[in-house]
Parts: sequence; structure tokens; C-alpha cells
Amino acid sequence: MKYGIAIFPSKAIQDEANSYRKRYDPHYALIPPHITLKESFEADDETINELVTELKHIANETDPFTININKVSTFAPVTNTIYFKVEPIQELIDLYEKMHTGKFPDNKEFSFVPHITVAQKLVHDEYSDVFGSMKMKNFQVEDKIDRFQLLYQLDNGSWTVFESFVFGKEHV
Amino acid sequence: MKYGIAIFPSKAIQDEANSYRKRYDPHYALIPPHITLKESFEADDETINELVTELKHIANETDPFTININKVSTFAPVTNTIYFKVEPIQELIDLYEKMHTGKFPDNKEFSFVPHITVAQKLVHDEYSDVFGSMKMKNFQVEDKIDRFQLLYQLDNGSWTVFESFVFGKEHV
Repeated sequence: MKYGIAIFPSKAIQDEANSYRKRYDPHYALIPPHITLKESFEADDETINELVTELKHIANETDPFTININKVSTFAPVTNTIYFKVEPIQELIDLYEKMHTGKFPDNKEFSFVPHITVAQKLVHDEYSDVFGSMKMKNFQVEDKIDRFQLLYQLDNGSWTVFESFVFGKEHV
Repeated sequence: MKYGIAIFPSKAIQDEANSYRKRYDPHYALIPPHITLKESFEADDETINELVTELKHIANETDPFTININKVSTFAPVTNTIYFKVEPIQELIDLYEKMHTGKFPDNKEFSFVPHITVAQKLVHDEYSDVFGSMKMKNFQVEDKIDRFQLLYQLDNGSWTVFESFVFGKEHV
């Protein structure tokens, strides 16, 4: 199966992102707004069980942290994806690095640019209009992050959460 | 925020359900195929933290179990929802009961009929056609269940997973 790892920001940020995604992102219905920590990778049941244990360790040794979104940006001219830029703090980079080393497949495709996609696969004129108008808006949001999620992909391209990993020691 | 509790069956069952939902369920894009354990309820942050602790206890004292789907059924004439009927074994009923007592809001609307919805809100003729043809098919599936998920609803009606609860003692 294909798995991926992501952070869902707060409901307020997801709602804001969805107000754009609904019109401008063909992945709108496939997954909630998210920050990708690890792009999709193949794993069988045995491997994923091992990785779940690793992910528990990673979550246990991570403290909740605050992220900041200060602007809208784009990957143009590589792709015309438009996104909320998440400031690349060390905590995010550490999570990313830990999920691309050791037992994890090192499926880094690009350098790590934490972001929440709000528009993609637009035709050029639409891209220019949307980015032009979003760039003018004031985005200043902060959000507390205290978990990440391991997801798998269904045949229709949508993603289902397999397991969530809450930061800090597990107390029951 | 509005929360709900559900079980996602295996990918194979989700894919099968989605092959119908895509055409016949307007909720197709809002949530993956699921067995609802607790219908949507309102909770503030403090309450949900308390309920998360309760859900951890419930998950800890539950062992993985097997569910069986043997037929397609319908809630007609109450609603024309068509669903994969999940045999109502004691383990499912126990989970349901524990989530509707004590600190949990007792938001039981109907008696508990475990099911995976595959079609709803059809016009009458379409309902008859779809149910007629699905009824003829042979559904005999079993699936191992080892977790449930707490989700919250976004403004667009879609559901994001807040936390997953894996059965049995938590070992890290």
C-alpha cells in the first residue's frame, strides 16, 4: 500500500485553505488541508508495523511546537502550485529528517519546503489571477502542532488516516 | 466543534464501498467509507480532552476482533440509504455503549445498526435500481478491526481525523 505522513493544521486554517482549494485544487476532495512531512511511499504490512514503532518513538521525543504562516507563496516556475508558506522551524525540519533516515525509505524528491497547498494544476491565466489576488491578502496565522498522522491511499486517490501520533509521552 | 467516532474498514472494503459511493453517495468526498460508532456531537476543547482520555481507556480494554459483512441492506422506508450490513457482534455493541454513557453525550438517535453506507439520498427509481442490482451480488467479507478514530467536521462538511485509538495496551 501507499502511505504518507502529514500534519493537519487547526480547523480554522483548514477552513481557510479549503475556501481556496474548493475552487482551485483538484485534490480538494482527496485529503484535508495538510503539511506533508513525507511524500507517498510503498510499504507492506510488516514494514509499516516497524515504521509505526519508529513513528511512536519520534512522536514521544517531540514536544508540541508553534508554526507560523506569514505569506502565500508559489513553486512557480517549477509548478504553479500556490500555498500557505509555513516558516521552516527546526522542529519541522527535525521531524522531516527523522522520517527520511534509518528504517524509513529516503524518498526525498525536493528540498523540504513546509507548506499547505491551496491551489494547483491551474491553467496559466488562472494561476496569475489567483496568485495575484492572494498575494495581496494579509496572512498572519500561528498554530500549535502536537501530532502528525500516517495515512494510506485508496484506489480512488483519496487518503485515509491509519494512525495518529501525539507528541510527548503516552499516558493512559 | 463537531466530533464523531468511526471505524475505517480495510482498504479493500473501502475501495469496494467507494466504487458505489462515487456514483450514489453525496458524502463520497466528505469522509472515507466507515462504520459510525458515535454520531456527530458538539464538544469544546476541554470536554474533548476528557473524552480522549476515556477513549484511550476504552481502546486499551478492547481486543482486536473480526467483523463480517454478509449482505447489502437498506433503511427503507425510513430513508433510502443502502449499506453493507456489518453483523452486530458484541464487541461492536460494547464499543457503541461505552461511547454513549458516563462522560459521553448520550446522542443515540436510532438503535445501533452497524453499517457502511454506500448509497444515500437517491431518487426513488434510482434507489430501486441500485438496491435491486446490489442485492443480487454476493457479499461475503470479513475484516479485522483493531482501532477506531475520533474525527471533527470542517465548515465544508468534511471530516478530519483528530486521533486514532489502537486496541490493547500501548507499548512504545
